[in-house]
Amino acid sequence: MPVLVMKFGGTSVATLDRIRRAAKRVGVEVAKGYDVIVIVSAMSGKTNELVGWVNETSPMYDAREYDAVVSSGENVTAGLMALTLQEMDVPARSWQGWQVPVQTTSAHSAARIEDIPPANIMGKFAEGMKVAVVAGFQGVSPEGRITTLGRGGSDTTAVAFAAAFEAERCDIYTDVDGVYTTDPRVESKARKLDKISFEEMLELASLGAKVLQTRSVELAMRYKVKLRVLSSFEEQSDDAGTLVCDEEEIMESNVVAGVAFSREEAKMTLVSVADRPGIAALIFSALSDAGVNVDMIVQNISEEGRTDMTWSCPVDQVKRAEQAMADAKSSGVINYSELLADQEVAKVSVVGIGMRSHTGVAAKMFQVLSNEGINIQVITTSEIKISVLINRKYMELAVQALHDAFELDKAA
Amino acid sequence: MPVLVMKFGGTSVATLDRIRRAAKRVGVEVAKGYDVIVIVSAMSGKTNELVGWVNETSPMYDAREYDAVVSSGENVTAGLMALTLQEMDVPARSWQGWQVPVQTTSAHSAARIEDIPPANIMGKFAEGMKVAVVAGFQGVSPEGRITTLGRGGSDTTAVAFAAAFEAERCDIYTDVDGVYTTDPRVESKARKLDKISFEEMLELASLGAKVLQTRSVELAMRYKVKLRVLSSFEEQSDDAGTLVCDEEEIMESNVVAGVAFSREEAKMTLVSVADRPGIAALIFSALSDAGVNVDMIVQNISEEGRTDMTWSCPVDQVKRAEQAMADAKSSGVINYSELLADQEVAKVSVVGIGMRSHTGVAAKMFQVLSNEGINIQVITTSEIKISVLINRKYMELAVQALHDAFELDKAA
Repeated sequence: MPVLVMKFGGTSVATLDRIRRAAKRVGVEVAKGYDVIVIVSAMSGKTNELVGWVNETSPMYDAREYDAVVSSGENVTAGLMALTLQEMDVPARSWQGWQVPVQTTSAHSAARIEDIPPANIMGKFAEGMKVAVVAGFQGVSPEGRITTLGRGGSDTTAVAFAAAFEAERCDIYTDVDGVYTTDPRVESKARKLDKISFEEMLELASLGAKVLQTRSVELAMRYKVKLRVLSSFEEQSDDAGTLVCDEEEIMESNVVAGVAFSREEAKMTLVSVADRPGIAALIFSALSDAGVNVDMIVQNISEEGRTDMTWSCPVDQVKRAEQAMADAKSSGVINYSELLADQEVAKVSVVGIGMRSHTGVAAKMFQVLSNEGINIQVITTSEIKISVLINRKYMELAVQALHDAFELDKAA
Repeated sequence: MPVLVMKFGGTSVATLDRIRRAAKRVGVEVAKGYDVIVIVSAMSGKTNELVGWVNETSPMYDAREYDAVVSSGENVTAGLMALTLQEMDVPARSWQGWQVPVQTTSAHSAARIEDIPPANIMGKFAEGMKVAVVAGFQGVSPEGRITTLGRGGSDTTAVAFAAAFEAERCDIYTDVDGVYTTDPRVESKARKLDKISFEEMLELASLGAKVLQTRSVELAMRYKVKLRVLSSFEEQSDDAGTLVCDEEEIMESNVVAGVAFSREEAKMTLVSVADRPGIAALIFSALSDAGVNVDMIVQNISEEGRTDMTWSCPVDQVKRAEQAMADAKSSGVINYSELLADQEVAKVSVVGIGMRSHTGVAAKMFQVLSNEGINIQVITTSEIKISVLINRKYMELAVQALHDAFELDKAA
């Protein structure tokens, strides 16, 4: 029998009724002839409750105990889902991470899956079981302790199972019905994509389109797992949702696949830093050690041995960055005249694998923004993405203008 | 290091504050030089929530999935308790049933512990760990599935660990401060016992003194585990609570240890049954098959080949018993003229190992009741117990009169 992996997130299993609805979807796939592996998250809210208890008990907690506590939410859903399927006469049983076993590293709370031996579950499929319900987000370390993969880890669990079992597809059921050309709340003409490449999805995900955990997309790309994102709250046809796949499987596509944005950005500039080898390493090590997630980095042309260094980071990390730079200055590690922070910027990006073969995308993007009178403050580019920092008040306007200009409301 | 087992029930770990209070008690024992095994229940209310979800999902549930879901409550408490101890600088870690492993039968939801290999935990004690926090109530089957021991199973887990680790003592922390000569709500002069024998405790527990699960007392008696019952809500001295132990360790004791009672009893009489071999087996098999928990049984003197059969059972099982007898009559299995049910009776018992060597206890009991004008409806006796059924309205009076007459308010 071909194997299908289906993953249901926290909102899709938040109540017994929603578990029933998800189980019905599973039943439909079983009826088509699949052996199904269902990956479940904790009922929404449950993981936060457990995390809250751990934090209140022990702010500097032992991550091994954190994992033992926090993983229990998924175990509850797995058992309830198996029972629900049995009630529908679908032969099913639950598996906790250690029972499969999902073998991970010992990096508690951020473990990586090392292996998923398929023998146990395949043996049960051979005996007539139709659905293995697996608790997501968790595994077992070489020491026999329970591990978790970090928040959002159930997506990664699902993709890892799809790879290990050579599944035909990995369907991620969530509370949105697919991946859009941009956020429909900002641009009403935003269009759901039928297909998107792994590379584009990675750029969109890391830019704030919080549909799939980045790690799960990376893993899917490496093992060529066909990922489908679709809604658990709508009736589904066979081609529902968005398929995230290898670019070879996408026959025709727009040059630009989507417009991503991130609202809560800050631009910081360290003015008049000594321009000598290793200075960037000193600055960004200090920021990293302080827990600042630096995104874009731009270094100005050097003048008389001094330069300016500009970066962007989330707005709520500005204070931390200022403290780190002040400390580095007072301890003589770096020298600068001033640290500027503009907390009123947003990032807007256009993403598309078509850029590799089409020139002029950047020029067109800059022209569109110019036509709207929007000043570009910082530019960074990658092979399939161009990002700009602009004044936050123009963000919606920029997204709409770019969406229009690249005709994203029309399919390729 | 000597090993001590400490068990905390659901109300003793109901909140993070209560877990902290329990952890402090554990710290006191560690400071005395013990290696401690802590057995925890789920935070009170949690198991009922999980059981409710299972029942709503699947009324005729797969007990294997029930166990997988319901066992998660104890896992949460175990992790939180380990973290709390670590915060107090006590080296501790949590263990789930399968990690120890607590090997049980495959009788899901009512599994029996078969073995607890001490090697893993003893190894950690040797490395300097001071406290092993174990999730109670659960184990793992030979098939690698999670099992539970049935409600109240954490007491049994605690005693089984005490036996496997040859613990010096097994302390059961609960919401009462020990075992009393009778219920203080009925007799204000009720006195806490410092010691009680296993046999007496078994009779008291099965009679409704719901301090310890009966199975745990049986297990403690078999393996000669010293059990101490004490309150987790009071400051504790070394001789707090009640020690349940072998009768040889009780130097002096009253002839009668306590007066037990059970309020919700019914007396049923099957009138004019054919008195032939096997008739009792037919009647009580039918009642057992119908799920009626028969307690006392009395058969009257036979007259002209007919006899009356009387038994007691919980009031809420009367309807079920009547249906079972009606069915047995209509199918010709048994024959009788009438089935009487008195739903206004209570059972009062005096219990004490001293009865073995002292005569006259029964006579004294009957005289006391007679002096109060209380009519005895049914009598049964065992080696260390005398029970009577009386009209329910006299129950409190009977308990008080017997408590007085046997001078239970005074220590031996």
